[in-house]
Amino acid sequence: MGKGRLEAFSDGVIAIIITIMVLELKVPHDASWEALKHLSPVFLSYVLSFIYVGIYWNNHHHMLHATKSVNGSILWANLFLLFWLSLVPFVTAWMGENHFAQTPVICYGIVLIMNAVAYTILAQLLIKHHGENSILARAVGSDGKGKVSIGIYASAIAVSFIHAWLAVGLYFLVAVIWFIPDRRIERNMKDAHD
Amino acid sequence: MGKGRLEAFSDGVIAIIITIMVLELKVPHDASWEALKHLSPVFLSYVLSFIYVGIYWNNHHHMLHATKSVNGSILWANLFLLFWLSLVPFVTAWMGENHFAQTPVICYGIVLIMNAVAYTILAQLLIKHHGENSILARAVGSDGKGKVSIGIYASAIAVSFIHAWLAVGLYFLVAVIWFIPDRRIERNMKDAHD
Amino acid sequence: MGKGRLEAFSDGVIAIIITIMVLELKVPHDASWEALKHLSPVFLSYVLSFIYVGIYWNNHHHMLHATKSVNGSILWANLFLLFWLSLVPFVTAWMGENHFAQTPVICYGIVLIMNAVAYTILAQLLIKHHGENSILARAVGSDGKGKVSIGIYASAIAVSFIHAWLAVGLYFLVAVIWFIPDRRIERNMKDAHD
Amino acid sequence: MGKGRLEAFSDGVIAIIITIMVLELKVPHDASWEALKHLSPVFLSYVLSFIYVGIYWNNHHHMLHATKSVNGSILWANLFLLFWLSLVPFVTAWMGENHFAQTPVICYGIVLIMNAVAYTILAQLLIKHHGENSILARAVGSDGKGKVSIGIYASAIAVSFIHAWLAVGLYFLVAVIWFIPDRRIERNMKDAHD
Repeated sequence: MGKGRLEAFSDGVIAIIITIMVLELKVPHDASWEALKHLSPVFLSYVLSFIYVGIYWNNHHHMLHATKSVNGSILWANLFLLFWLSLVPFVTAWMGENHFAQTPVICYGIVLIMNAVAYTILAQLLIKHHGENSILARAVGSDGKGKVSIGIYASAIAVSFIHAWLAVGLYFLVAVIWFIPDRRIERNMKDAHD
Repeated sequence: MGKGRLEAFSDGVIAIIITIMVLELKVPHDASWEALKHLSPVFLSYVLSFIYVGIYWNNHHHMLHATKSVNGSILWANLFLLFWLSLVPFVTAWMGENHFAQTPVICYGIVLIMNAVAYTILAQLLIKHHGENSILARAVGSDGKGKVSIGIYASAIAVSFIHAWLAVGLYFLVAVIWFIPDRRIERNMKDAHD
Repeated sequence: MGKGRLEAFSDGVIAIIITIMVLELKVPHDASWEALKHLSPVFLSYVLSFIYVGIYWNNHHHMLHATKSVNGSILWANLFLLFWLSLVPFVTAWMGENHFAQTPVICYGIVLIMNAVAYTILAQLLIKHHGENSILARAVGSDGKGKVSIGIYASAIAVSFIHAWLAVGLYFLVAVIWFIPDRRIERNMKDAHD
Repeated sequence: MGKGRLEAFSDGVIAIIITIMVLELKVPHDASWEALKHLSPVFLSYVLSFIYVGIYWNNHHHMLHATKSVNGSILWANLFLLFWLSLVPFVTAWMGENHFAQTPVICYGIVLIMNAVAYTILAQLLIKHHGENSILARAVGSDGKGKVSIGIYASAIAVSFIHAWLAVGLYFLVAVIWFIPDRRIERNMKDAHD
């Protein structure tokens, strides 16, 4: 089974998710800087989630680039990932509108954990389908970053009981970790193409 | 006539349908677990419909994968299917927000029946266009699952007069039936490619 | 310049337009058949516009299928068409929510006229770019249907001063005219491929 | 790394941005011409932004058409551009609903500047990746228009302190500058293909 429509459908869903989040930036009724300032937590929350969804799109792009074909289980694992990504706009808006209160901050962390779990399942199924010695398996690697991320998300939920902003700081930390380009993967990909 | 844009357009519409459903998960104004708990029927309803739309995308993907070309009638049959899929977010939200009351549960069933009917029409037109002995005809098969599904939806509407949750249970049952991968079709597809 | 991204972008915009219209079917707060019945004009208005946008997608699909390449003017003519299509959800909802009152019915007609005009401009630019003897020019033909449609839209606006529903009837009439497959075009397309 | 999915994802996001802006044209509750007239600043603001997003799609289309491959930095620069584009619907609606009051008009200008900056970064990274003598470098050229645009946006913010409508006039001026097809680029592109 070809991967073309899986990529197209995922691109579509992720494009919509990243864009509808901005709809939660509700247009204020008055035209003052004060009104804009009042929106700043919602905006900060939007920036964080935009980076996260961007990272997922980026990684999904890389992983499927190295994919040769897919099967039924992979289609469902991909939908499972898209399901958890689809909850990002909801927790983003809830967290922003409540000025990073503890409960939404915890839920945001849970959704991030579930996204990471879903991504790992998808990666494992793809590796299984292509074989342990495939380019894909080498490109995905041991996924150390993914495991570290889940650990940091869990810590963030724990420290949110001290102060919710500590958790938010950890969420930004994970975003920074992923943002720094992973030279090793790009090199592997490049080698594979040479 | 090529099938490329039909796939692209369908992917686009289905991607939007599956994603805008989440907009009905209205962000609560307070940051409590209580507020989240209050959303649970809407969430459950969202999960059910996400699975259904996922199944339709999956089956549509498979069926069009085996398609060689399309004609004007097929374009319209496809739009007819997309029309009924586009009503899924509406009945999903209505059912969830009214905590699975009988009337919305019945309407949900009617929309599912119409989707199944529209899918069957599309499948029949595709088979007619490709010939009874085509790979497509073999891949789609006698569509036993489709017929059973319509039967269960109709039963669900009937039992909703006893208790609406019985109907919801049957809707989940159909989702489970489709969720279990249909080995026969995948094998047929595989054979056809060998 | 290739036509691939023009098709992809147009598919995306048209897919979103046809789907966000359903967001105007506002979920009623109570779970009664009465509440649903109250939505019937909005639903009827949605059905009409779904058919119209479907027709535009269908015709756009056909016309670009016969297109070899595009230029800057064609890109802008296409955006001009997408602009008027993007106003369809607005006039659809306005007309439906006001139970087909005269002013929204007239505006709906104006938007339909502008869509037809924009489509004609796009078609003319494509024909000019490909030459009068191209497959595209033959496939698009003299566009009799398009001219008749604009005439009926104008008549609809005129008769809306007698009764708004007469205009709505004419809008449905145009939809029916387009819905009937245009055998001549399909045959031309087919011949061109043989 | 191929450019296919980058184009597809960007098309998706830009298609959604250009379309969801129309959702801010809130359907009036009464069916009068008066109600429609009341919407005219929102409509004017929509037209301006539709043209801007159209220009960005158009230029993005041209630039990526001349692109051979992309790398990690380019993916992120593209996401940075999409982020600022995603804020266009927000400032558009804010500016329109407040009848072009000074604060939203300034914010609109800031978002336009950031879009222009993000586009320039993307262009520079693409040129660096392809080499100074590549077709892409020639096609993008010295980006005089981009620099002039940023200058006019900054002037617009300055003159908004005299009268906000002067700024709006300058925003339309930039749109007109870009709207006039850039014969030089199209010729370069054409030469490159010959």
